[in-house]
Amino acid sequence: MTISFSISDEVAGIARRTAEFVRDVVIPEERACGGSVHDAPEPLRHRLQQAARDAGVFAPHVPREFGGLGLDLRGQAVVFEEAGYSLLGPLAMNCAAPDEGNTHLLHTVATAEQRERYLRPLAAGEVRSCFAMTEPAPGAGSDPRALATTATRVAGGWRIDGRKWFISGADGAAFAICMARTSGTPGDAGGATMFLVDAGTPGMKLVRNLETLDEGLFGGHSELAFDGCLVGDEQVLGEVDAGFAYAQVRLGPARLTHCMRWLGAARRARDIALERAASRSAFGRPLAELGMVQQMLADTEIDIEASRALLWRACWELDQGRPGAQHTSITKTFVSEAVGRIVDRAVQVCGALGISADLPLSRLLREVRPFRIYDGPSETHRWAIARRAVRSFT
Amino acid sequence: MTISFSISDEVAGIARRTAEFVRDVVIPEERACGGSVHDAPEPLRHRLQQAARDAGVFAPHVPREFGGLGLDLRGQAVVFEEAGYSLLGPLAMNCAAPDEGNTHLLHTVATAEQRERYLRPLAAGEVRSCFAMTEPAPGAGSDPRALATTATRVAGGWRIDGRKWFISGADGAAFAICMARTSGTPGDAGGATMFLVDAGTPGMKLVRNLETLDEGLFGGHSELAFDGCLVGDEQVLGEVDAGFAYAQVRLGPARLTHCMRWLGAARRARDIALERAASRSAFGRPLAELGMVQQMLADTEIDIEASRALLWRACWELDQGRPGAQHTSITKTFVSEAVGRIVDRAVQVCGALGISADLPLSRLLREVRPFRIYDGPSETHRWAIARRAVRSFT
Amino acid sequence: MTISFSISDEVAGIARRTAEFVRDVVIPEERACGGSVHDAPEPLRHRLQQAARDAGVFAPHVPREFGGLGLDLRGQAVVFEEAGYSLLGPLAMNCAAPDEGNTHLLHTVATAEQRERYLRPLAAGEVRSCFAMTEPAPGAGSDPRALATTATRVAGGWRIDGRKWFISGADGAAFAICMARTSGTPGDAGGATMFLVDAGTPGMKLVRNLETLDEGLFGGHSELAFDGCLVGDEQVLGEVDAGFAYAQVRLGPARLTHCMRWLGAARRARDIALERAASRSAFGRPLAELGMVQQMLADTEIDIEASRALLWRACWELDQGRPGAQHTSITKTFVSEAVGRIVDRAVQVCGALGISADLPLSRLLREVRPFRIYDGPSETHRWAIARRAVRSFT
Amino acid sequence: MTISFSISDEVAGIARRTAEFVRDVVIPEERACGGSVHDAPEPLRHRLQQAARDAGVFAPHVPREFGGLGLDLRGQAVVFEEAGYSLLGPLAMNCAAPDEGNTHLLHTVATAEQRERYLRPLAAGEVRSCFAMTEPAPGAGSDPRALATTATRVAGGWRIDGRKWFISGADGAAFAICMARTSGTPGDAGGATMFLVDAGTPGMKLVRNLETLDEGLFGGHSELAFDGCLVGDEQVLGEVDAGFAYAQVRLGPARLTHCMRWLGAARRARDIALERAASRSAFGRPLAELGMVQQMLADTEIDIEASRALLWRACWELDQGRPGAQHTSITKTFVSEAVGRIVDRAVQVCGALGISADLPLSRLLREVRPFRIYDGPSETHRWAIARRAVRSFT
Repeated sequence: MTISFSISDEVAGIARRTAEFVRDVVIPEERACGGSVHDAPEPLRHRLQQAARDAGVFAPHVPREFGGLGLDLRGQAVVFEEAGYSLLGPLAMNCAAPDEGNTHLLHTVATAEQRERYLRPLAAGEVRSCFAMTEPAPGAGSDPRALATTATRVAGGWRIDGRKWFISGADGAAFAICMARTSGTPGDAGGATMFLVDAGTPGMKLVRNLETLDEGLFGGHSELAFDGCLVGDEQVLGEVDAGFAYAQVRLGPARLTHCMRWLGAARRARDIALERAASRSAFGRPLAELGMVQQMLADTEIDIEASRALLWRACWELDQGRPGAQHTSITKTFVSEAVGRIVDRAVQVCGALGISADLPLSRLLREVRPFRIYDGPSETHRWAIARRAVRSFT
Repeated sequence: MTISFSISDEVAGIARRTAEFVRDVVIPEERACGGSVHDAPEPLRHRLQQAARDAGVFAPHVPREFGGLGLDLRGQAVVFEEAGYSLLGPLAMNCAAPDEGNTHLLHTVATAEQRERYLRPLAAGEVRSCFAMTEPAPGAGSDPRALATTATRVAGGWRIDGRKWFISGADGAAFAICMARTSGTPGDAGGATMFLVDAGTPGMKLVRNLETLDEGLFGGHSELAFDGCLVGDEQVLGEVDAGFAYAQVRLGPARLTHCMRWLGAARRARDIALERAASRSAFGRPLAELGMVQQMLADTEIDIEASRALLWRACWELDQGRPGAQHTSITKTFVSEAVGRIVDRAVQVCGALGISADLPLSRLLREVRPFRIYDGPSETHRWAIARRAVRSFT
Repeated sequence: MTISFSISDEVAGIARRTAEFVRDVVIPEERACGGSVHDAPEPLRHRLQQAARDAGVFAPHVPREFGGLGLDLRGQAVVFEEAGYSLLGPLAMNCAAPDEGNTHLLHTVATAEQRERYLRPLAAGEVRSCFAMTEPAPGAGSDPRALATTATRVAGGWRIDGRKWFISGADGAAFAICMARTSGTPGDAGGATMFLVDAGTPGMKLVRNLETLDEGLFGGHSELAFDGCLVGDEQVLGEVDAGFAYAQVRLGPARLTHCMRWLGAARRARDIALERAASRSAFGRPLAELGMVQQMLADTEIDIEASRALLWRACWELDQGRPGAQHTSITKTFVSEAVGRIVDRAVQVCGALGISADLPLSRLLREVRPFRIYDGPSETHRWAIARRAVRSFT
Repeated sequence: MTISFSISDEVAGIARRTAEFVRDVVIPEERACGGSVHDAPEPLRHRLQQAARDAGVFAPHVPREFGGLGLDLRGQAVVFEEAGYSLLGPLAMNCAAPDEGNTHLLHTVATAEQRERYLRPLAAGEVRSCFAMTEPAPGAGSDPRALATTATRVAGGWRIDGRKWFISGADGAAFAICMARTSGTPGDAGGATMFLVDAGTPGMKLVRNLETLDEGLFGGHSELAFDGCLVGDEQVLGEVDAGFAYAQVRLGPARLTHCMRWLGAARRARDIALERAASRSAFGRPLAELGMVQQMLADTEIDIEASRALLWRACWELDQGRPGAQHTSITKTFVSEAVGRIVDRAVQVCGALGISADLPLSRLLREVRPFRIYDGPSETHRWAIARRAVRSFT
């Protein structure tokens, strides 16, 4: 093997079918929900997912034994980029956050029984899930060690107490994967444990749905309260006190799949800008021949190619089973900032039209901004990148 | 006289009263309209304006003969910055766009009768107005010479035909100042003329209210159609064919007053970020002691000071009656980009909280973005700046 | 085949030997020439090249039949990065500009006789060469079609007239590859032809050696005059009037090999900064724990990884024989700017020491700046990138 | 008084004479020293200073009682910008670093006898001086509290021991103002004291002249050793242990005067770029009509105006006797980065010519880079700016 940027025929085929599916089936549905996915109706989700099954593009990341297409991360990189071309695409293909990341986590960590009970219906799109880790200040945010929600041993199980917020998809989820401290104190590494908590479990309550800048995730983001919420031992996901390590199992790939989908969204913005630059004139010349517009268009091409190249590299590292933390951090930081620049430039090229809802650009502008904060803010990643870089010199 | 950054006692007093008024009266009303001004109720506007009168801060820019405080541009720079600290502040003080700019235009160009009929009630906050210049492509946008709306001579007056969009405050305005071509063809400089068109004039129709990224202007932005709209000669504002020159009369100061208000909004974002950086910890230290946070905070201080210094300079040029086009373009370009950076950094410092509607930051993020496009996109201003700079070398 | 970032054992071995060779043999020689390569003595070049042969790392890009290691572009990407770690590395390994690019051009275009006469001794390091294309204004610079040097048919050959500058390595070169117009007029595409002109040919004269910001190329940059310089038909390189196409044959890979070497130089700067950040303290803490320093270090890691990923991608495209112009332009633009940022940050991290000649950083700062201009300025590449991007939308 | 950007007739007159003097007298002398001031011959300095006296522009900052023009900081801002248009201008007018800053320090702190002995000949240009504060790591660099050079009480005076570097103008200086620790230990605030040390005093030795990226200061930068250097009590400048406070007396204005001079240098680069953009064509159009070039030219205009506006503001603060640390830090940070961008863009606009010594741009590129490090690196200033900003919220 040597350096290669070839895409296998199988992956190329799925990507092509995905692009067609998004173009022909998904995008026409966007108007139905005003471009805002977070309060799209459940029937739309079911209809789109059935269409994805029919098109042979459903659940590309899910292992074949659970009904998916079984792609590795590199395959996902190629296909998810096509899916992300519409904010509804990942939802249709059942590869949206947070379900997609939870699928991976469950497949890696869950027991056989847990897989049947939680993973199988999730992979099939029958239910949705959420991942309850982030807490309001001074709890676990950019610093996961600040985890303040506790799980205390009780007879036959655990009692969970604490507060979570920015829990995507919690409203309507069949179960939550809740991260709680089982040893140590906030600020320590200590030990955290993951729990599978079914919707309706007494003591787990949806406090409110947050109003946020972004509205691109089905179900939006919610605040959850755990007040004496009791779960049995069989609801423990993986080992007790191993939660921080599992979080990395989930977050590494999840950061990359976010990048893939946002790269697709950025390409959508880029295409809109290119089309307009090619067709509209100002000062007697097509926009596309004005130097400052060309500079924006070129910088977008550069950002897209660099994003994709970094992404594929990081995916390859993880696919090889190599420690990919540095590549993942670098990729997440670069791509989250690049997609912001790309959408911003597209708006600028389109002028006032880009500000209006006549184009999806201002919607995308709102969607991509939080990605510089979600999944670890750029500052936390840069801190980690620098520390790893300096390590070999100390 | 020499270089001085002193603020006169009178202006300092008005600024201080404005700051108190915004803090004590205006900000508490923000929740009432969800932070979104564009569909705030008319009674709120009246209540706030009465409060501003009571506080002695109403209409700082309006000449004394029309009931205002009569500040020159430098005085406005100091006071409007305080007003802009809340999106509702300029509305309360009757110095919001587009009324504030129209006030200046009418005072400079209108006949005595027109002043009494249009300017007096506008200055008093009894009615609102709009400025109908911008057109959808391929009409007048960043290139004003593309003006496509026409006014044709008819007996005793003019017949206006064309389409306008992004007309701020049109919904509910008592009159529009409409810019239409009276000679030449789109692409020419040719001649444009301004017309005062009363609401309800047959042939002027509000087509739709635009859905836009920003929602900070009372009444929002609308699309207007002029279809055989007849107006009398007495509705001509200024000279026939002198419209492009009058547009500069309006736009020069209007660009600066926009900068003043947005600078105030940016300072609001900055204060929120500073407060949070001072009070919240991560990784065992206050945010305000983390180097990357300090870098963001410092860059914001630099952006604020540079914005203000440029703004004051441009105001001084205009107050001296000197040709201020270069200073105005430079200031508008710098400030529109700086306020975007400032709000963006404030969001980043506040993390997920900054994305939520629990803070006004994500609202501000949406409000400041269009300013890089409205009133001439950065690219058009840079083009003009470069041309003026190179002129003395050719 | 699928996406892969594996490096073959063979290439990895050469890269490892190169890294050791540069560290143990080349870097110790840097002081001898004060870090400035352009007036390094010829015996140093011979001594270093012999050492490279002994180390098995000589001429990695040269086809095996001409005594090299026969690496494709991806292999070169890995090895040249190691070579570039010292400004003397590429010279030692006979893969410095302009000889390296000329080697490729001659191998692709030259006749069998020309290969023996020009390529063989060049590949062996026995002689040096130059590529005489760039002209002072208003001739061929960023716009190659402005080519003003002419070659006129005479009996049995051609007569060349014109002026060239920034001709790297001309001083001491055994021959020049001169590009001259054989049809059309400046500003046309027209036709250009390449000529092999031996040193000492009457009418080719070295006017002066230019004093430039960079001093990293052996022989520096010179200005050449062609005044009635006569060459025979056998001196034509390739077809008459096909010169612009050949220039692309040369420039595409040459842009990438420049990127490879400069990436190595940037890594040198990065290592110096990391070492210092790890060992020096300020304000009571190691530099490497100060947030603003960490931000610089992290941005450098991101720039390096993105540069390498883009570079490998572009090399793969060319190795596949696919049209790589867009990837080459994107890579050249990104990498030339990234290496500038990397070295600049390294200087900043090292403070006053970085400004002094006690470290090689200020030397590197001077060397990398021109790369944003040489081989096509960023603006020209962005213009080309935008045009290609917009093409599919017109 | 109110906000004003007027320049008094007196200052305007000196500025105009300065501009003419630099254009007609100073710039023609630049070639004589190859653009590199640091090893310009002493007779050139004397000749230029005599010419400045003849032109009535000598020593604009020096109080009238010591033979200067007695300008306040705002006046200096206007005049030094004109002086800085040539690297030789400040030398000619005796307002170059470090003498200019030392003049101010001596005038503020020295005794009457010290003024006669040190200030008078310095102000007259008869002698030169240096300021010996910065130390190699781990001594006083960006963190002044790391001061390691000590002064120990001995009978009748002090004994100084330590090492200094980057001491500008030390080679040939008639005296040094040496900062040494007289209480506390490195890392403490503790107490420092300033000493006037005459050239030739035993124990003060010039170790070497540093080779640096910049070569724009007469005498360059040197490394000094103090080994048992004895000075009398009358050589103490100001109070014992008050040195850190005096350093701020010197550094605040000195940072601003650096900004003034570099702004002039940046304007020189800008003029060269504008002239070339106006006169040279590429791709069939004047450079000045290419959008990407216009963007660079416009950004430079913005940077110049923002730099000047910030600078005048900071000068006004200091002229009012107000605490100007925040304004000084903001101005130094912004201007040092802006002048770097301005010169960099000028090089880019001029292409290869900008890299060659045929224009002074590559020289200026080398000169402005260190200013982001000298006088406090940007990072230290940003740290201080953020701390001051956050203070009112804690």
